Parts: sequence; C-alpha cells; structure tokens
Amino acid sequence: MRPIRVGLLGIGTVGGGTWDVLSRNADEIQRRAGRAIQITQVADKAVGFARKKVGKKAQVLSDAFEVVRAKDVDIVIELIGGTTVAKELQLEAIRHGKHVVTANKALLATHGNEIFAAAQKKGVMVAFEGAVAGGVPIIKALREGLTANRIEWIAGIINGTSNFILSEMREKGLSFDAALKDAQKRGYAETDPAFDIAGVDAAHKLTILSALAFGIPMQFAKCYREGIEGLTQEDIGYAEELGYRIKLLGITRRAKKGIELRVHPTLVPTQRLIANVEGVMNAILVKGDAVGPTLYYGAGAGALPTASAVVADLVDVTRLITADPEHRVPHLAFQPDQLSSTPVLPIDGVETSYYLRMRVADKPGVLADITRVLADCRISIEAMVQKQPAERKREVDIVMLTHRALERDVNQAIKKMGKLKTVLGAIVRIRQESLL
Amino acid sequence: MRPIRVGLLGIGTVGGGTWDVLSRNADEIQRRAGRAIQITQVADKAVGFARKKVGKKAQVLSDAFEVVRAKDVDIVIELIGGTTVAKELQLEAIRHGKHVVTANKALLATHGNEIFAAAQKKGVMVAFEGAVAGGVPIIKALREGLTANRIEWIAGIINGTSNFILSEMREKGLSFDAALKDAQKRGYAETDPAFDIAGVDAAHKLTILSALAFGIPMQFAKCYREGIEGLTQEDIGYAEELGYRIKLLGITRRAKKGIELRVHPTLVPTQRLIANVEGVMNAILVKGDAVGPTLYYGAGAGALPTASAVVADLVDVTRLITADPEHRVPHLAFQPDQLSSTPVLPIDGVETSYYLRMRVADKPGVLADITRVLADCRISIEAMVQKQPAERKREVDIVMLTHRALERDVNQAIKKMGKLKTVLGAIVRIRQESLL
Repeated sequence: MRPIRVGLLGIGTVGGGTWDVLSRNADEIQRRAGRAIQITQVADKAVGFARKKVGKKAQVLSDAFEVVRAKDVDIVIELIGGTTVAKELQLEAIRHGKHVVTANKALLATHGNEIFAAAQKKGVMVAFEGAVAGGVPIIKALREGLTANRIEWIAGIINGTSNFILSEMREKGLSFDAALKDAQKRGYAETDPAFDIAGVDAAHKLTILSALAFGIPMQFAKCYREGIEGLTQEDIGYAEELGYRIKLLGITRRAKKGIELRVHPTLVPTQRLIANVEGVMNAILVKGDAVGPTLYYGAGAGALPTASAVVADLVDVTRLITADPEHRVPHLAFQPDQLSSTPVLPIDGVETSYYLRMRVADKPGVLADITRVLADCRISIEAMVQKQPAERKREVDIVMLTHRALERDVNQAIKKMGKLKTVLGAIVRIRQESLL
Repeated sequence: MRPIRVGLLGIGTVGGGTWDVLSRNADEIQRRAGRAIQITQVADKAVGFARKKVGKKAQVLSDAFEVVRAKDVDIVIELIGGTTVAKELQLEAIRHGKHVVTANKALLATHGNEIFAAAQKKGVMVAFEGAVAGGVPIIKALREGLTANRIEWIAGIINGTSNFILSEMREKGLSFDAALKDAQKRGYAETDPAFDIAGVDAAHKLTILSALAFGIPMQFAKCYREGIEGLTQEDIGYAEELGYRIKLLGITRRAKKGIELRVHPTLVPTQRLIANVEGVMNAILVKGDAVGPTLYYGAGAGALPTASAVVADLVDVTRLITADPEHRVPHLAFQPDQLSSTPVLPIDGVETSYYLRMRVADKPGVLADITRVLADCRISIEAMVQKQPAERKREVDIVMLTHRALERDVNQAIKKMGKLKTVLGAIVRIRQESLL
C-alpha cells in the first residue's frame, strides 16, 4: 500500500516534535499501523527554519491553505493554534475531504460543534487526542475504553503550569508571585500567564472532556472559572493541617439538575493519588458507574508528549481511512444524533463542600454569631480550627470545612458574615472535594 | 440495524456483572455504539441459577459448545476461565467465525499465540481488555494510545490480592500470615492463595503486556517469578526508613540483550505515585520514548470493573464487525508478520539495584569482609544502615542498597557472603527500581 500522505501545518514546538517522532520511530509505527505514514508537505511562515528542519524529505510552503487544498494530501495536522486562521484551515481541509488531526483545545472548546458537524457531513475524521493532557490517552479512554459506563464525574489536573506553581508554593513555601516567576524562568509559563493561571486553558480542556463523558455539545461559555492568583501560603498551610492539598481542578459532574462544569482551586484529601501529582504533570480521575474510579497520569504538555498523541491519532486515522464512517468512533463519543440536551448548571446551583477562612475579633460571642449565620443558610460544619495569628494579639483566624452545601447558600452566608462587625477583612472561600 | 447477538459463556461473578452492565446501561451503550448489543444465549452449568438471573431475555443452555456453534450468535464472551475447556471453546468459536471477547489471562498468556493465529487466519477478532487490570483500559492504551512510542519499560501492580496484603502489612504492622488471613476473610484471596501470592496471576498479565509493548509472542514460560510469601515486617520497616515501599511489581523492559520479564517484590521510592497505590487497586506505569512515563490506575478485579472492560470490547468489536480485518487493530498491537524475535532475558542477565539485609556478628572486620566480597563481584553500595536488633546483644543487622548490578554477580556475592563465619543466617535480597 502507498504511504499515507500528511500535510503538517505549523512546525514549531509540537509540530517539530511530531516530525521527530514520526522520523525516529518510523519502523516501530509502521510495524503497528501496517502502512507507512509520511509528512509530505509542511506549511510554516518561517519557511527557512522549516526547510532546515525537514531537508528534502517534504515540500515546504508558506501558505497553509495550499496544503489543505492539495490533492496529494490525505490527512492534515493543524498545530498552528488559535481560533481564527486555524478554524478556517480546519474547515477548508474538511471541505476538501481531508481528515484532520489537531491538538487545538481552544478551537475545539469554542467552535468544536461547528467543526464536528462539518466533518460529519463530509464523512471525515477529526482526531484530537493531543488536545487534553498531552500524550496521556484520555480521549481514547473516554471515547472507547469506558463505553460500558455511565460516567458520573471527572476531576483533573489539566494545566501543568498552574500545578507547577502550586507545587512550588507548597514545597518551597514560595508566594504565588515568586512561584510564577520561577515557572516563567523555566519556560513553563508564558510572559502573559493569564491563560494558564486564570484557568482558561483548563476550562478549554474540561469542556472537551465533559462533552465526551456526557454526550453533550461543547459549551465553553458556560464553564465556571476561578484561577489560582488569589491563593496564599496561609491557605495552603491550613489545608495541609486539615489533611488536604490545594489543586487547580477541572471538575465536571452529572448532577440531578444538570451538568456541573467548573475550574477552580480545590482542597483534595492528601491521601488521594491525585493530590500527590506534582510539578507540570497532569492527571485525570474518571468515575464510571461500573469501573469505579480510574486515573490517567502523564506529562500534560511539551513537544514529544503532545507529538505522541498526534501520531497516535495519525495511526488511528490511517487504519480507518478507507473504512465506512459508520465503523468509526463518533467524534464526541456518542452518535451525533444522540447528543443530550442536559443543561450545564450555573455555578450557584452546584453543591459541594467548602473551606472558609476568616479573621475575627477575639471577643465573646463571635463564634456564636458566625455559626448562627451558617445555620440560617442551611450550612453545617464538619471541622473547625481556630488559630492566633503571630502578629495580631486581639484577632483570631477561624478556618472551617463545611458539609456539602449549595453554592448559592454559601455565597449568601459569606455576604451575611461579612457584614458582622467582628469579622475583619475578606472571607476566603475554597471548594473542597472528597473525590470518592 | 439488527442488534448484535452475543453468546455468554459463564454467568458467574464477571459474567453476571457483564449481564448487569449491559442491561442497566443499555441506552448509554447504544448511544455510543450506534447499535444495540444483546446477550441472546447464556451457557452455564448452573442452568437454574442462570435462568433465574436472565429470565426470559436470553436462552439458557448447559452446553457451551452449542453456543459457540450457534448460527445466530455474532460474538462469544468466554468467562469460564482456565486453560482447557476454555481453550477448546475459544478455538471452536473462531472456527465458526465468531468474534471472541475474553478476560482469560491464564489462557492468553499460555496459549495466546495459537489462539491469535487461528483468529487471524479466520479473520475474526479476539478482544481481551478485561484480562489485565480489570476495567482500566491499559490494553487499549498500549495497542492504540501509545502507538507513536518505542516502549522502554512497563512496571505494574497487577495483582490486587498481593497488593492488599502488602498494604495491610505496612499500615497495620501485620505479619504476612495475618494479612493473608484478613484478605481471605474479606473474599480477596482464595482458600488456596498460591496463584496470587506466588506471582502466577501477575506473570500471566505481565506476559500479555510485554507482548503488546514489544511486539513479541507470548512467552509465559520464560517469565521469572518470585512471590511475597517471604516478606517480613523487618524488611518493610527498613525499606520505609530508607524511603521506599515494597510492592509486588510485574516489570518488563527492553534491555540491550533482550526483553526483561519478571515478577517480584520490589522497593520503590515512596514519593512515586505507584508506591502510594494501596489495597486491591492496580496501577501500571508505562514509559514510552516520546510520551515519557504515564500511569493507569483503577480497580483490578471485581464483577463490575471487569465487566466494564468486557463490554468496552463488545462495543469495539461491534463497530468493526463488518469492516475488513485490515482496518482492525492487530491482536498483539503489531502486524502479525511483524512480530520480533528479541529473546526474553534469563533473570541472571538482568541488571537492577538491590536491597540486601543480613545479620552479622558484632566484631571488628566484619564489614571489611562483606564490602570486599561485594567489590570483588563488581557491586557498589549506594546506602547502608546498621542496626542493633533489640533482642540480641552481640549481633547487628546490616541493610544496604546497591547501585545497579548484574543479578548473576549479586547471586555470586550472596553465596560468598553466606560462607563468611561472621554472617549469621540467610541473606535477604529484594530488587529495587527507581522507575524513572
């Protein structure tokens, strides 16, 4: 059989890694795929750099649109990123009957519904294992490995940069700012780190996982986001004392009234495996009704790990390229006419547990006032510690963990407690999940 | 499309779980598979029990051979277990053009080559996700998710019973015998537990993983095995002091001269995720050259977790049932004409690190004698602790960790040290892996 001909759009970090993996493991890959896979065309604005990288082994073009329209290309790999040109390129590739492999989570989370519909209509595949957790085959696990299950929830560390920062804060006692600077120095965080630390990147990935788990369309706009910028050493320390670590988790859950879809710092019991995932590594916990909890762990970013996913997709697409579309796994795990309209829950309809910290005046009756407000708001307390801060003599820190409560009730309680004269400054609220 | 018709052989624990999962998640599964999957025939010697379980929804037979020969069955699920009748049934099913789904690791590890060859010839699929690590999709990860990688090594906790016993010994300070009794009381270990604690079950599973990772035939007979029967509180305690936990690991590695294939108790650094996998849970670390280390974790046994894998296989087979065999993933991950003849290394050709413990007379020159023997055998020491046992005044425990050394050299050194008059009793040797 003739080799599968691939057009590569973007030969930067991941594109370069994909070129390298396909070259160095060509034999191993062909032994598995039963067919050679060759990148025959490369499009990159840095034509000179691209030429130097690929030599005479592939044609180099500056116009990516030429590649997606080329007659002698079977699969297009889009690694340009972003949601504008990349979208046009993917749609144009589909229009020309090309299969698409991509790691572009931002594009899929925001325009995936349109792209998958176009691909469905044209009978081509869009594969995207590299979009979540680098080379960890979590998309495959959800679309194929766990098909027997009614998925109950997913909780994942899916942004390596913010996990690195949280690890540094906990292990070295650094402030958020210092840990961020460290991450930037090591090349883990961009000069403008907002995308990672504010949870946008994690929300893109969570949107994709949620669609696959529950058979719902991509709904990035409805994903609740809270970043790690506000976390302090105090809260990391108190959490540790209570037996918890703070992780930026993406959580999506099938609740009674809808699907929860939320990214925020979360207290996780220290003995959970996922609480011990440190540095830039990613891990995703998936709870199925039959299989129970399963966890998938590995490098969430980087040239070669992401290339591992891109090339695995190439092999999958290569195997099914001449098969009827009906033999293929549906893009979003469920048949396209079987997507569910279950709504995404607004955050104040979410029920979970909470860590609350507040500084109060050290006077009689303070605790009685606070616990009265909580009781009035239907919130019960699971654990509480009271600590004298070193620097203030007549003030006390109160830290508590609540039982499960409705976010709306907790917000109301925080508002009411904030109005008490004895409560000094802002009340810190971090969600807590037992993940069982 | 008419439903896929399935014949179920054996409706015991996993068979019953499979029936339950297929029934209760029928809608969810059909939304994914695009086609209904129905168990239409059940074979079990306990006909009365089977009839009670399935009611009028399926035909119940006592003769499994009738089911594998039935014209109106598309897929046969073999959950009878064992390597005799189960083998005849699988081969007879293949002869009759049925696809086979099984969780029978003992059969595949010992007769898989024959079964896959027969299936290949007949153009049918044999799917076996349930054979390793219950519902954790590790077979799919190796066959499809990591196809871009040259796999370097795999290390897994793949026997829940022995992991439970080791957890109990460490956490509760129980002896091996007491922990085993506890496991039996909870139903985790059979009355004859040899299969689990001697590493036979883990060796079956490791044989399968090794074949998938390296593209070699199944070679169970060449798998080295050492069980957990000999482990004592002393070694668990010393390991802990040195920063390690002892786990029964199945390890397979691509070494220079061949493939390592070995199951034995192993010291693993406590900070590794896999060292923190406790109780009956399973976890498998896979190191690929592109993706780096990835880990897969979940329940390794039980009715519903294993059923999760069996049903996932059913969905996979259902999707590809009318496709050309060339579109299917090869049974052993590599194309059948591409299997490698790389030999399995005998254990004394393996190179790893070692934990050694010996009791010696507390006299001058003892340590000099011991370290001289080690040096003569080309073994260098990484760490050493010396401890006075409470009950003996003139004796000392010496515990050391070696750098990487050849097993043959270590065996020779142990023999020589054992002959020293100052070394009292047997020398304990446990392998150590850093898993990086």
